[in-house]
Amino acid sequence: MDRDIRRCSESLVEMTEMVLPNDANRLGNLLGGRLMHMIDIAAAIAASRHTNRVCVTASVDELHFHHPILIGEVVTLKASVNRAFHTSLEVGVRVSKENLLTGKRTHTNSAYLTFVAIDEVGRPVPVPRIKPQTNEEKRRYRDAARRRRQRLLHRARS
Amino acid sequence: MDRDIRRCSESLVEMTEMVLPNDANRLGNLLGGRLMHMIDIAAAIAASRHTNRVCVTASVDELHFHHPILIGEVVTLKASVNRAFHTSLEVGVRVSKENLLTGKRTHTNSAYLTFVAIDEVGRPVPVPRIKPQTNEEKRRYRDAARRRRQRLLHRARS
Amino acid sequence: MDRDIRRCSESLVEMTEMVLPNDANRLGNLLGGRLMHMIDIAAAIAASRHTNRVCVTASVDELHFHHPILIGEVVTLKASVNRAFHTSLEVGVRVSKENLLTGKRTHTNSAYLTFVAIDEVGRPVPVPRIKPQTNEEKRRYRDAARRRRQRLLHRARS
Amino acid sequence: MDRDIRRCSESLVEMTEMVLPNDANRLGNLLGGRLMHMIDIAAAIAASRHTNRVCVTASVDELHFHHPILIGEVVTLKASVNRAFHTSLEVGVRVSKENLLTGKRTHTNSAYLTFVAIDEVGRPVPVPRIKPQTNEEKRRYRDAARRRRQRLLHRARS
Amino acid sequence: MDRDIRRCSESLVEMTEMVLPNDANRLGNLLGGRLMHMIDIAAAIAASRHTNRVCVTASVDELHFHHPILIGEVVTLKASVNRAFHTSLEVGVRVSKENLLTGKRTHTNSAYLTFVAIDEVGRPVPVPRIKPQTNEEKRRYRDAARRRRQRLLHRARS
Amino acid sequence: MDRDIRRCSESLVEMTEMVLPNDANRLGNLLGGRLMHMIDIAAAIAASRHTNRVCVTASVDELHFHHPILIGEVVTLKASVNRAFHTSLEVGVRVSKENLLTGKRTHTNSAYLTFVAIDEVGRPVPVPRIKPQTNEEKRRYRDAARRRRQRLLHRARS
Repeated sequence: MDRDIRRCSESLVEMTEMVLPNDANRLGNLLGGRLMHMIDIAAAIAASRHTNRVCVTASVDELHFHHPILIGEVVTLKASVNRAFHTSLEVGVRVSKENLLTGKRTHTNSAYLTFVAIDEVGRPVPVPRIKPQTNEEKRRYRDAARRRRQRLLHRARS
Repeated sequence: MDRDIRRCSESLVEMTEMVLPNDANRLGNLLGGRLMHMIDIAAAIAASRHTNRVCVTASVDELHFHHPILIGEVVTLKASVNRAFHTSLEVGVRVSKENLLTGKRTHTNSAYLTFVAIDEVGRPVPVPRIKPQTNEEKRRYRDAARRRRQRLLHRARS
Repeated sequence: MDRDIRRCSESLVEMTEMVLPNDANRLGNLLGGRLMHMIDIAAAIAASRHTNRVCVTASVDELHFHHPILIGEVVTLKASVNRAFHTSLEVGVRVSKENLLTGKRTHTNSAYLTFVAIDEVGRPVPVPRIKPQTNEEKRRYRDAARRRRQRLLHRARS
Repeated sequence: MDRDIRRCSESLVEMTEMVLPNDANRLGNLLGGRLMHMIDIAAAIAASRHTNRVCVTASVDELHFHHPILIGEVVTLKASVNRAFHTSLEVGVRVSKENLLTGKRTHTNSAYLTFVAIDEVGRPVPVPRIKPQTNEEKRRYRDAARRRRQRLLHRARS
Repeated sequence: MDRDIRRCSESLVEMTEMVLPNDANRLGNLLGGRLMHMIDIAAAIAASRHTNRVCVTASVDELHFHHPILIGEVVTLKASVNRAFHTSLEVGVRVSKENLLTGKRTHTNSAYLTFVAIDEVGRPVPVPRIKPQTNEEKRRYRDAARRRRQRLLHRARS
Repeated sequence: MDRDIRRCSESLVEMTEMVLPNDANRLGNLLGGRLMHMIDIAAAIAASRHTNRVCVTASVDELHFHHPILIGEVVTLKASVNRAFHTSLEVGVRVSKENLLTGKRTHTNSAYLTFVAIDEVGRPVPVPRIKPQTNEEKRRYRDAARRRRQRLLHRARS
């Protein structure tokens, strides 16, 4: 397996979704689980773009929902690989909502997921390293290491 | 609003789902996001049963996926309210998978979510208290307080 | 094929479903066919749990719908194997609806379905016998034989 | 409410559906419940065409599944109103499957459903009568009365 | 491959669909893309019936939407093969909408699509010829040739 | 209604979709109609972003499908408003597919759709003008006028 080095910009994913009636509760709010579903798909595509492998979700960090999203609003998700480890990698997803009738956009969530790259029979395989370029990418790269320590701690405790 | 006391057993939810082709990646593994979607629905029904209110997801604790689940397998989710706070409550969801052809069942995940009960115009409303009965319920009740402190800490940091 | 004996309690299935807008007609009533779909899935999982085989629907007994179920209400289905015959078995499904805002639960339907267990190429295979334990299970076991006679009669007539 | 007389031919419905992966079990057979869902929709449209009302499923007669239908096959449903009673009516649905690669068509099921016409607040309303024209329509009209007696009997017993 | 001659009437497809909330925008209008999806499925089944092959969409002619279709209305699609060429064929789809509560039916669109018949590995294969019988079929047969020339021209230009 | 001037860049939409089993025919090719559905949603969001109105599809130009897209591949759609007329506007959508395992991306389609902006009761309303900035935007702006003449011609003929 070739462990070459890639850039963050090569695996960026942008997804846009309209909130439909079946995605919402009886007051018209997007269900939290449906949003997690969107987040996971955007992140999985970014992970797969970076690795050229099928990637499976290994963990999702604690996630907060502060802003209700309504039927008819548009959800935009931007997923980027923050850091690659041995067979796993961290993907960050930035979620915004947009009311098309007012044009108002609001940042609603930031999510951090880890994925493991697997081969055809489901065994983990090493992933390409990543080389952060911009200051923003470098900050995310450092933060990803910190979040990884917390995850290992969390997993050991539970 | 009546803030009476209820039992954990009154709001238990059991959900059973078959994994269909559209729920899976190209190797036939259930997508992590689709499982989160199921977890959130089971938990939201438990929260709504306890409160007789529409409840919206406020947060999901860190979640790990250790066991791949395949197309054709059955997912069972058991959701119970662990503790009620002022306008929010913690719901725990225990997820298992089952291979119907072998009868083998495996515990795959434990998830903790908080919900906020809202009225018709989306304002948070106080929720009924909960009275744990069994030792298991009492343990979950205590743990819920500990997890709540961590969540507030996490939220303050980020 | 091992034709051992199993208990009813080993294959019980409990399913919980929220009624979403796409499941309903323009007045917000759950479509009868969508409910039949849920009934069939719950019953098929129970049949498969009892037999450790893929089971296909062979028949559904006459079914009445007396209680409208609305968008936002929750449907609970409890499926249990009533009796096993040679390669087929009868599954009973008890359906209730629940209004989460009032807590009111109503029994809406009882359905009886027969399934045939099949192997990998679709041929019927013998199924394990069932041993009813409780009085309720024994009553269902006896009734299943009576319903079977009616089904064979019905099928001969048509 | 105008109780005029209509013809069977005015409310005929023909539906054609492709069997998709999510409609099938792990051996690729269309789920019985998914077929019941299609049958109910075709029948509900026929009932609504005859009455110009929203119609809700009141009952489904005993239904047998003798022919497996596979992913990629096409299901054709023909629904016609057989007889109108006071506020209810019987709809018959004839189901065939077709293998597009061989052109072979097979009759798989005949289903009989009753519907009740309702007004905007869900109360039953009288429905137009039907005037059978062809010998086939007259036979179905007579048979519908016989099936109705059996249904009332069945309902009284259970 | 046998290039025999078939009739238009042998591959006619009639599809009926109810417009559900998830098919519509926030004002309750059926999305244009959802209607195109229905048109393509009806046409693909007709193409496959004529050829006994999997057929893939090669092109869709310019399509106009003059009549809004609402949630709860019924869409009827009639697809027929107009002409067969070497490995491709033209299918016409006539779309109507119907308000079940008033009985009013309106012709909404006419669409023309071309399909290519392919074998198991995706290579184009020759298709049976078609013999128009009625004057209407003969007119469509002639028009299909004219539309084909425009398509080739359009494709050459772009 | 304010008819101010906006830039193309303000209403750009990028959508990313994974091709799932239910989106494909039995050989695993994405259905043409499902792709048209994706194209229409991306374009409708761009139109709505430009106008801050609900926009309904008025027409789709002739569309060719030269490249099969397979289950598991990723579809990327970029939609931009090319030109605004009085109450209508043209949106162009550029579609690519990507094989995540090889990283290969292929341009598959270019689609041109017109939308009409409507108010709450469905009446057309004037739309903001657009000011192309880059050479590419200016070329699209000019081409949109030419395509419009062809559309009016096509509509007059049929």
